[in-house]
Amino acid sequence: MNFCSDNVTGGAPEILAHLAAVNDEPVMPYGADPVTQRVEARLAALFERAPNAIASFPVATGTAANALILSCLAPPHGAVFCHRDAHINVDECGAPELMTGGAKLIPLEGEAAKLTPQTVADALAQGWAGVVHHVQPACLSITQATEAGAVYTPDEVAALAAVAHAHGLTLHMDGARFANALAAVGCTPAEMTWKAGVDALSFGATKNGALAAEAAVFFDPARAADFAFRRKRAGHLFSKMRFLSAQLEGYLADDLWLRNARAANAMAARLAEGLGRTPGVTLAAPVAANEVFAHIPKAAAEALRGEGFQFYPWTALGEDCHRFVTAWNTKAEHVDRLLETARRTKAA
Amino acid sequence: MNFCSDNVTGGAPEILAHLAAVNDEPVMPYGADPVTQRVEARLAALFERAPNAIASFPVATGTAANALILSCLAPPHGAVFCHRDAHINVDECGAPELMTGGAKLIPLEGEAAKLTPQTVADALAQGWAGVVHHVQPACLSITQATEAGAVYTPDEVAALAAVAHAHGLTLHMDGARFANALAAVGCTPAEMTWKAGVDALSFGATKNGALAAEAAVFFDPARAADFAFRRKRAGHLFSKMRFLSAQLEGYLADDLWLRNARAANAMAARLAEGLGRTPGVTLAAPVAANEVFAHIPKAAAEALRGEGFQFYPWTALGEDCHRFVTAWNTKAEHVDRLLETARRTKAA
Amino acid sequence: MNFCSDNVTGGAPEILAHLAAVNDEPVMPYGADPVTQRVEARLAALFERAPNAIASFPVATGTAANALILSCLAPPHGAVFCHRDAHINVDECGAPELMTGGAKLIPLEGEAAKLTPQTVADALAQGWAGVVHHVQPACLSITQATEAGAVYTPDEVAALAAVAHAHGLTLHMDGARFANALAAVGCTPAEMTWKAGVDALSFGATKNGALAAEAAVFFDPARAADFAFRRKRAGHLFSKMRFLSAQLEGYLADDLWLRNARAANAMAARLAEGLGRTPGVTLAAPVAANEVFAHIPKAAAEALRGEGFQFYPWTALGEDCHRFVTAWNTKAEHVDRLLETARRTKAA
Amino acid sequence: MNFCSDNVTGGAPEILAHLAAVNDEPVMPYGADPVTQRVEARLAALFERAPNAIASFPVATGTAANALILSCLAPPHGAVFCHRDAHINVDECGAPELMTGGAKLIPLEGEAAKLTPQTVADALAQGWAGVVHHVQPACLSITQATEAGAVYTPDEVAALAAVAHAHGLTLHMDGARFANALAAVGCTPAEMTWKAGVDALSFGATKNGALAAEAAVFFDPARAADFAFRRKRAGHLFSKMRFLSAQLEGYLADDLWLRNARAANAMAARLAEGLGRTPGVTLAAPVAANEVFAHIPKAAAEALRGEGFQFYPWTALGEDCHRFVTAWNTKAEHVDRLLETARRTKAA
Repeated sequence: MNFCSDNVTGGAPEILAHLAAVNDEPVMPYGADPVTQRVEARLAALFERAPNAIASFPVATGTAANALILSCLAPPHGAVFCHRDAHINVDECGAPELMTGGAKLIPLEGEAAKLTPQTVADALAQGWAGVVHHVQPACLSITQATEAGAVYTPDEVAALAAVAHAHGLTLHMDGARFANALAAVGCTPAEMTWKAGVDALSFGATKNGALAAEAAVFFDPARAADFAFRRKRAGHLFSKMRFLSAQLEGYLADDLWLRNARAANAMAARLAEGLGRTPGVTLAAPVAANEVFAHIPKAAAEALRGEGFQFYPWTALGEDCHRFVTAWNTKAEHVDRLLETARRTKAA
Repeated sequence: MNFCSDNVTGGAPEILAHLAAVNDEPVMPYGADPVTQRVEARLAALFERAPNAIASFPVATGTAANALILSCLAPPHGAVFCHRDAHINVDECGAPELMTGGAKLIPLEGEAAKLTPQTVADALAQGWAGVVHHVQPACLSITQATEAGAVYTPDEVAALAAVAHAHGLTLHMDGARFANALAAVGCTPAEMTWKAGVDALSFGATKNGALAAEAAVFFDPARAADFAFRRKRAGHLFSKMRFLSAQLEGYLADDLWLRNARAANAMAARLAEGLGRTPGVTLAAPVAANEVFAHIPKAAAEALRGEGFQFYPWTALGEDCHRFVTAWNTKAEHVDRLLETARRTKAA
Repeated sequence: MNFCSDNVTGGAPEILAHLAAVNDEPVMPYGADPVTQRVEARLAALFERAPNAIASFPVATGTAANALILSCLAPPHGAVFCHRDAHINVDECGAPELMTGGAKLIPLEGEAAKLTPQTVADALAQGWAGVVHHVQPACLSITQATEAGAVYTPDEVAALAAVAHAHGLTLHMDGARFANALAAVGCTPAEMTWKAGVDALSFGATKNGALAAEAAVFFDPARAADFAFRRKRAGHLFSKMRFLSAQLEGYLADDLWLRNARAANAMAARLAEGLGRTPGVTLAAPVAANEVFAHIPKAAAEALRGEGFQFYPWTALGEDCHRFVTAWNTKAEHVDRLLETARRTKAA
Repeated sequence: MNFCSDNVTGGAPEILAHLAAVNDEPVMPYGADPVTQRVEARLAALFERAPNAIASFPVATGTAANALILSCLAPPHGAVFCHRDAHINVDECGAPELMTGGAKLIPLEGEAAKLTPQTVADALAQGWAGVVHHVQPACLSITQATEAGAVYTPDEVAALAAVAHAHGLTLHMDGARFANALAAVGCTPAEMTWKAGVDALSFGATKNGALAAEAAVFFDPARAADFAFRRKRAGHLFSKMRFLSAQLEGYLADDLWLRNARAANAMAARLAEGLGRTPGVTLAAPVAANEVFAHIPKAAAEALRGEGFQFYPWTALGEDCHRFVTAWNTKAEHVDRLLETARRTKAA
């Protein structure tokens, strides 16, 4: 009963099975295999792009996807604007700086780890562009769903893209939980991304059922001209690439990715609804995707831990705040048992 | 019938099965899982080291293992000496340069991609150490088995280590085909590495039956003090680390790794023996592990391709030279059919 | 009548003369010359350190001094804490990131561009140390005088050093205007630096009378072990080093540096005093060294510009705020004429 | 009587005087000064380019010029081909690697440190371009005059440029001793550079009379689009830029640079001619510019040192080989005394 993160889960059975399915035949390495080619075609179709109007690259981790994409969007003397709590800024131990060769991340404020067009516009109004003393504004990066569990609507994305593009910046979306956000919003992948102005997407799969697979997706292949070389020199080009690609193929087949995301989101909603009705407990943030932040009395938190529930404190939102993440395989009975324990403790 | 490389193969069934075996339970991410802990213990035992006298880190690619290890052994202004054909020098698109922050690889000559103590001593005699204008000698890197299919004996490794250590350099072994080399030499992992003076080892598994798994192994944990941070910032820390570790666990269980290597080597020997007796064909290099380099008449090469055999030309050893790599699952009947085709063509 | 910055000035006559004085004899290059050796001894004496308890290196720019020092104090995966307006964070186009290989600057808030121990302690309380996902706290950097013209007292420096050292961080002081700060505070160079816990100092000279010369000073030579190599690979080791060193020698001779700083500070005080008494004008910050920030009516600012005065708007402190920097050769009559113009305009 | 290098000299009197001449007036910093603007115009005229068909940037060291230029010509995953003895490969402690973000220098062989079109063509024939495993051929760099004192004729440069351009590489010329080479060849600066296909030039002045000044020159300004930012982040943008520019202005005024170079070359010729006639002494390489390499009997070398002559052994060309460098201010009487001592010793 581990609610620490969606990455405590294993892989979805369909994806594990697909690894086995592509295993036997010898195929050429480094991506010159039929699985990888099929995944590229699948992603083009999924995002409603002509094959030559999209470039996608499987990688194994979200950090690799983010940092390698940013290395194509920002020069070493560039600036990447993002929320101060963004994964790229806080949780990647400087990966963007490594891969870009030293670009600077400019942290911005915003509720629920979301940025607003005004915040971005204000930051860009400081007039760094073209001035030799300052890193050069190159990219805006947003996280979907955000690190605080919120989601951007396509309109919100479009408004941010408008500001970014007006200043000559590209827009990157860190979609580590893209599926959960998409399921929450209910639009198409295209509407959530390039139709709203997104230039490049880290398309996450690991948290939502893969073992270790993401795709770096560019909606203008010209921007990805160097990606393959950068991926290789970062040690992220797999020789047996088929196994990265197979995870993505299994993930996308039969809408597994959306089914998984909806399942996770439903469990988060069930948990949030129950916690909201639990005396002494209050939600710390609206629940949009598969993360629940809640203020919980100390006794209740201890009781939950005593019953074997695992979850992280989230003091950024308050001393008594905790984060509960649901996943594609979270069981309703575990959620219900958690709620029952919380209520019982309160009553005691 | 693909002899292009050992990385055209899939994963060994035992390893695939082990992925499934560790899949179901939720475990903490980023290596705080029991599989990873077991693998660390297993590697310590395998190399006959106390748990606190070795540090090992699973990564997904050989390039990552090599470059991240080198980043711990050489400063940005350091020099890494290696053979000019070394994988780190030729085939990693500058990964060591990226990870070290700009260290320079100094290419040396040597037959069969092997270095000799004299070559290394001569290179170090140029007197760069301590002189501010030159990159500072920091590390010697050798490949085992080499890029030309040769192997170093423990005595040869020890002689190289002696030169390196006498000049204050560490010794790194790129063991992408460590198992094949070990099987060929017939010594213990300890004898091949730290007992012969190796300071750090890229312990390969991918080519020999894993899907994408290697281990970076340090025989002095102090040298690995930064490794975990460097791995993370390179995007090589897997959240679902268990799946990297499980590949290594499966690989090491029941000596699968050595059995696989012996099988591959045996097929290379069978192929070499047959080619050596084929009129018009001559071996371009002695066959020690699982690679065969042979001069083959043009007609024979074309006939082989016509029959569906795949293999790379290897013009570095001559216009008519080709490389054949066997793997853990290479079938004797395929080898025999290849030989038969070669002989038949010659006869024609 | 240019008050834009102290770097609009030329070099002090004494320093220009000293360049000529060291010019004629051939000397060995790259610092193996007597001038450089004398400067090293002079700096040791100035800072009351034994020759083997200090390491100093002439460089040509403040950005080079700062970034190269930081590269010795922070690993590529390190964090450098500084004020958000710090020169290293805003005005060096990412030089610290380049030289450190990607370390992250963590911007903190604080009045007059000064940091408080509490702010630093709060930032360090987030618990990044030892956690692999985060850049590792390595260094605290403060500017003396600050970018807003304020100065730290030795007690304030000591309090910051205490927090930094308690968390395992080193303390760097960007002393681009060290002389002005020292003259303002009235303590010894030792009291301002190592006696208060400073580990490394960018000792500025350019703004205060040199042509292009600074010294990177370490109070523990062990921390500077790599500096010479890092300086060389950054292109900052001058072959004709004597000309860098001669600037520093001339700067330190006969207390020229302090006399220059006192002169600049006196002119700033004169300007501040006069502006403070000018109707419609208010000072935007206390004046400690050689920078004056003042709110000035638009008409007055235009009149000043019309009379040939040059100065920068400083909108960070308000729409009507402007910065006036005095230098070692600012003339009292120019200050007085500026004040007269400001008063006249107001009266009109 | 120091023949170790041309960088043991001070600055030419005309250049020192020009520093003083531009000193007094306040001017805007960072290159927005009239001296810098005049130098840009002067370089355009010197190289017979329209002002908008050339981009030039003063920097203080040759290493900075070389490495910053290369950072504009090669991506982090790029390859720069050069002679194995090239200054960029041997004597810059990895500066090109730092500034490019990790590009690899590919060392080539060649007599007298010169490259031939065939050597370059052979290196490029290995087929790395477009293959993801290899660093991507980006630039060819040659040194004029070479590290062994030889010069390229414009025809030789053009032949190398043809090979480079045919493979999509740019051609960089490290002109640390450009003036000496030009004086030796007797062509125009334009003929030696862009008319022969050079894309970017490190235009040296330090060795030939400046204190510390070089210019990075691009014959296609588009390639220099990032240079200003890269210079700044490397700490090489001088605030009091006028002093860099003034050195170049003084250097180019009244053909001082060519007069200085001719003087140095004449002294080298005088020395070479005399050594060639000294029994027991043989020249180790033809003398083209201002460097003389000679085999000298041990007794003679010791006698020279005993008389106060300084020079470096150059064992790359033989155990008994030594290098003598003449400079703009080398005195004929010192050369003659050297020759006399060598002859006397031999006779003894």
